[in-house]
Amino acid sequence: MRTSIATVSLSGSLTEKLTAASRAGFDGVEIFENDLLASPLTPEEIRTRCADLGLRIDLYQPMRDIEAVPADEFARNLRRARHKLELMRRLGADTVLVCSSVSPLAVDDDALAAQQLSRLADLAQDFGIRVAYEALAWGRHVNTYDHAWRIVETADHPALGTCLDSFHILSRGSDPKGIEDIPGEKIFYLQLADAPLLAMDVLQWSRHYRCFPGQGGFDVTGLVRHVLRTGYDGPLSLEVFNDVFRQAEAGPTAVDARRSLLVLQEAVGAAELPAPVVPTGVAFAELVTPDTEPVSALLAALGFARAARHRTKPVDLWQQGEARILVNTGPAVRRGGTQLAAIGLQSPDPAAAADRAEALLAPVLPRRRAPQDAPLDAVAAPDGTELFFCGADGWRADFEHVAHTPAATHVRHIDHLALTQPWHHFDEATLFHRSVLGLHAQESVDVADPYGLLRSRAVTNADGSVRIALTVGAAPIDDTVRAQHIALATDDVVAAARRFREAGGRLLPVPANYYDDLAARYDLTDEELATYRELGILYDRDPHGVFRHCYTRTVGRVFFELVQRDDGYRGYGAQNAPVRLAAQHAVQAVTGG
Amino acid sequence: MRTSIATVSLSGSLTEKLTAASRAGFDGVEIFENDLLASPLTPEEIRTRCADLGLRIDLYQPMRDIEAVPADEFARNLRRARHKLELMRRLGADTVLVCSSVSPLAVDDDALAAQQLSRLADLAQDFGIRVAYEALAWGRHVNTYDHAWRIVETADHPALGTCLDSFHILSRGSDPKGIEDIPGEKIFYLQLADAPLLAMDVLQWSRHYRCFPGQGGFDVTGLVRHVLRTGYDGPLSLEVFNDVFRQAEAGPTAVDARRSLLVLQEAVGAAELPAPVVPTGVAFAELVTPDTEPVSALLAALGFARAARHRTKPVDLWQQGEARILVNTGPAVRRGGTQLAAIGLQSPDPAAAADRAEALLAPVLPRRRAPQDAPLDAVAAPDGTELFFCGADGWRADFEHVAHTPAATHVRHIDHLALTQPWHHFDEATLFHRSVLGLHAQESVDVADPYGLLRSRAVTNADGSVRIALTVGAAPIDDTVRAQHIALATDDVVAAARRFREAGGRLLPVPANYYDDLAARYDLTDEELATYRELGILYDRDPHGVFRHCYTRTVGRVFFELVQRDDGYRGYGAQNAPVRLAAQHAVQAVTGG
Repeated sequence: MRTSIATVSLSGSLTEKLTAASRAGFDGVEIFENDLLASPLTPEEIRTRCADLGLRIDLYQPMRDIEAVPADEFARNLRRARHKLELMRRLGADTVLVCSSVSPLAVDDDALAAQQLSRLADLAQDFGIRVAYEALAWGRHVNTYDHAWRIVETADHPALGTCLDSFHILSRGSDPKGIEDIPGEKIFYLQLADAPLLAMDVLQWSRHYRCFPGQGGFDVTGLVRHVLRTGYDGPLSLEVFNDVFRQAEAGPTAVDARRSLLVLQEAVGAAELPAPVVPTGVAFAELVTPDTEPVSALLAALGFARAARHRTKPVDLWQQGEARILVNTGPAVRRGGTQLAAIGLQSPDPAAAADRAEALLAPVLPRRRAPQDAPLDAVAAPDGTELFFCGADGWRADFEHVAHTPAATHVRHIDHLALTQPWHHFDEATLFHRSVLGLHAQESVDVADPYGLLRSRAVTNADGSVRIALTVGAAPIDDTVRAQHIALATDDVVAAARRFREAGGRLLPVPANYYDDLAARYDLTDEELATYRELGILYDRDPHGVFRHCYTRTVGRVFFELVQRDDGYRGYGAQNAPVRLAAQHAVQAVTGG
Repeated sequence: MRTSIATVSLSGSLTEKLTAASRAGFDGVEIFENDLLASPLTPEEIRTRCADLGLRIDLYQPMRDIEAVPADEFARNLRRARHKLELMRRLGADTVLVCSSVSPLAVDDDALAAQQLSRLADLAQDFGIRVAYEALAWGRHVNTYDHAWRIVETADHPALGTCLDSFHILSRGSDPKGIEDIPGEKIFYLQLADAPLLAMDVLQWSRHYRCFPGQGGFDVTGLVRHVLRTGYDGPLSLEVFNDVFRQAEAGPTAVDARRSLLVLQEAVGAAELPAPVVPTGVAFAELVTPDTEPVSALLAALGFARAARHRTKPVDLWQQGEARILVNTGPAVRRGGTQLAAIGLQSPDPAAAADRAEALLAPVLPRRRAPQDAPLDAVAAPDGTELFFCGADGWRADFEHVAHTPAATHVRHIDHLALTQPWHHFDEATLFHRSVLGLHAQESVDVADPYGLLRSRAVTNADGSVRIALTVGAAPIDDTVRAQHIALATDDVVAAARRFREAGGRLLPVPANYYDDLAARYDLTDEELATYRELGILYDRDPHGVFRHCYTRTVGRVFFELVQRDDGYRGYGAQNAPVRLAAQHAVQAVTGG
């Protein structure tokens, strides 16, 4: 099954767009008229460029408001069409899109529409071109796919077919089942876009908020199933108008786009990918740091002991219970100081997990290992975090045991990891973690930071042993300064916090006003409240249970959270995040870091 | 009439918000609960801080889902309320907001709601506090202001009144006339917010898209008139939830906010401001540049001559027809190289124009002049552009004539000035130009730049002799790199372009594909097309007339446009902007500047 993408879905000049589409592995493109008009390349040069890049020009869409208009207007339209068909001949594009008219001149007359579209198809046929007629959701008289099809059927012209667009169909709530009544050979083209479920003006929704399949709320997969049952064998083509993609780099957007189609093709049985291998736990989190001192002090205060060191690399393994933190001081250290650079995921089949990731276009990382090291399969997530797929502790053979006395603390394992995403890649990150890792995405929540709104969304496996919280700002500021964190599960957060403090650790101070509010909201004993207040422990409840958590100060970009989940609490204390964020800003304002 | 602002409308810590509100001249604040919870200041310290800043704490809103609930739930609510009333006593706030319940426990029983609100008012009264009950637009059973008022009326309790919120009333399309049936002394509070007219889920609309009065599509002024007729004498208070304001600097947002209230107060006759003095023309545009060479070359090629120089400052006056450009090489030169720093507006009464600007919180600029210079009244627009109000050529007395030979060109005057706005200040800029200068704002249009969408909006005076196009990116990238431009009106753009080229000027090359499209769209002669193609002239039509225009290369951040408006064309060639922007990016990619 061929895949295609409209140039309007990508940012940059036409040349940049074509290059990005080709590199991401698309078979073809729809050329958006404005991209052609603004390009210094002639149509012949564009044709050659596409051929060199292995891209077919699947569609061109230069015509609007063509049909069901008075005769003199139609004559002008045909004159314009002749120019555009001539251009398409030079371009080597064989399908032209005609959207249903939004012109005030258009009349509600299906017979006239069919007759004029037939005339246009006659002309197009002379150029070897097919006309694909599509119902815009906001078309003046024709705005449903079945209506557009009735007109095409009436015209009964070999060079006239219909174009289906998932946005126009699903945004109106039309039942896509009726698509199966259209003969597949009369579906000349299929455009796909998803969108978040917003109750808003459909034109604005379409022009600004479309997204790639699987990133919104539409059942695009279901629609494609209906289309495939008709025998349609044209491309799956993405036409996505999105304000964010317009200004994101074209390369990553094109990869994100094609991944969305791969997932869709897999879902409809049109592509065979290696099956997902869901991770079964967090093997480790890896910090890179230019300066081990503050990180070591923090880990030691949390009760971690340096339990092993890598045989060939400057990497220490710190451990406490089942929580393992690697501290890497090697050359991989990046700008920004201490940060969370990699996550080791326990995998029942690391090689298969890496195969799936690679098939879904995740960059596979070079194994940079000494000959005696265990092979570790690793890919990069969209935010650059390295994901290692680890078999049953095989990776630990690379580490040499260091004599140490495990401390008695209450830290048990890594509860979750929180990663700030680059602004442009939030939806991509969610789709990546869902499709590549087979994790389940929870609902997105808004969190008020004093300096802007954040959106946060967790992805988890079924038993909650892998939880990753993805966070992004409502609009871009400097994302690189935002913190990442590692939450450690404890069986007694009060004891763990005390132990941390007694070992010289500094907890994030929480304002007294927060505890007055806690007293108003919950029936907590004075003693309990006093303890929380003393240690800066935050409190939350959901229908399942209770969550108590507190935070360390930040080192570089990283801080730790100590959490205690009781009775099956499922969230992450999002309710408390504004207070935590304000407290972190306050500390930063005082210490400057 | 007192003015107030909710802390949620501003960015930052509570301290930063209070400071910004005070500096902008607000009389009071509504303290949003999350801001208090996250603050390290105790309630007493917040009270003192507000008092020191001259701010009254007009409202606190810590209570939700209070009324019309089962007895045991209400008992819990009262327990919580007691905590919050005690907090308010410490804070010194005397009005508490209670929004209509959204709880699934709430029942549709007005009598019960009235009875429970009465109980709450009893309790509040003990603390010297009044309860203001407000209908949320998405309240479960109570979602219109008249319904909330019926409940308050039924309760008939001296410490219970209603709070009106323009967003909740106007977003539902309720008729605000009925407000006049409420006795003014029972309206305990008035919250104001505008919003763009979006057809979307009202909760999301309210939480993310509210804006200041006059910046959206609601008739907030009309609503306030109804409220004032009741005898209401409480504050006008802004409660604006807006994703942009959340991350903009608090200081400018607070100024923008208060300006919006001043304009509103003027409209309802509650404030007397100096009347607007609409500018009658553009006296000059002033470029600052660290390097006169390229600017002088460009101006000379456009037919400008250096006609005068300032008696005391390093400023040259270049003139052609009625177009005057000042070139300033003085110390005011800012980062970013050559840029459009100031606009001289012809004003029938410069002093009165400056008085109005000052009354509307525009920063008045120091006159930095030598003793013999004419006084020039100037203020700063929100984007930092300096606006000079110029009397009948008085300012020219500061300039000494330089011998020169005026060239015979077709440039007549400045047609319009185009200014890129900082992302956070687009709506502010529009309100500023409308209210301070008395200009009329045209519709906002979207323009596709290859690297992101732009929004553009023109403000003009009645005869079009002052036109300023304000432009902003759909999301922030580095705005400072975006170009500004000066459009010069010609009576023959073809001759003007030829003359420019012959004098060594370089016009922006326009892709050939654009002219193929022009041939398809319009019935132009081959000769006409060949001319446009040769010179890079773009073409547009509107229902009134024809527009032809072309562009120079960019110097620093500035380029020039030569335009010819025929037969009353009213636009700015927005249709051609994507082609122009792509051509500019292409030149930049080649030349790196």
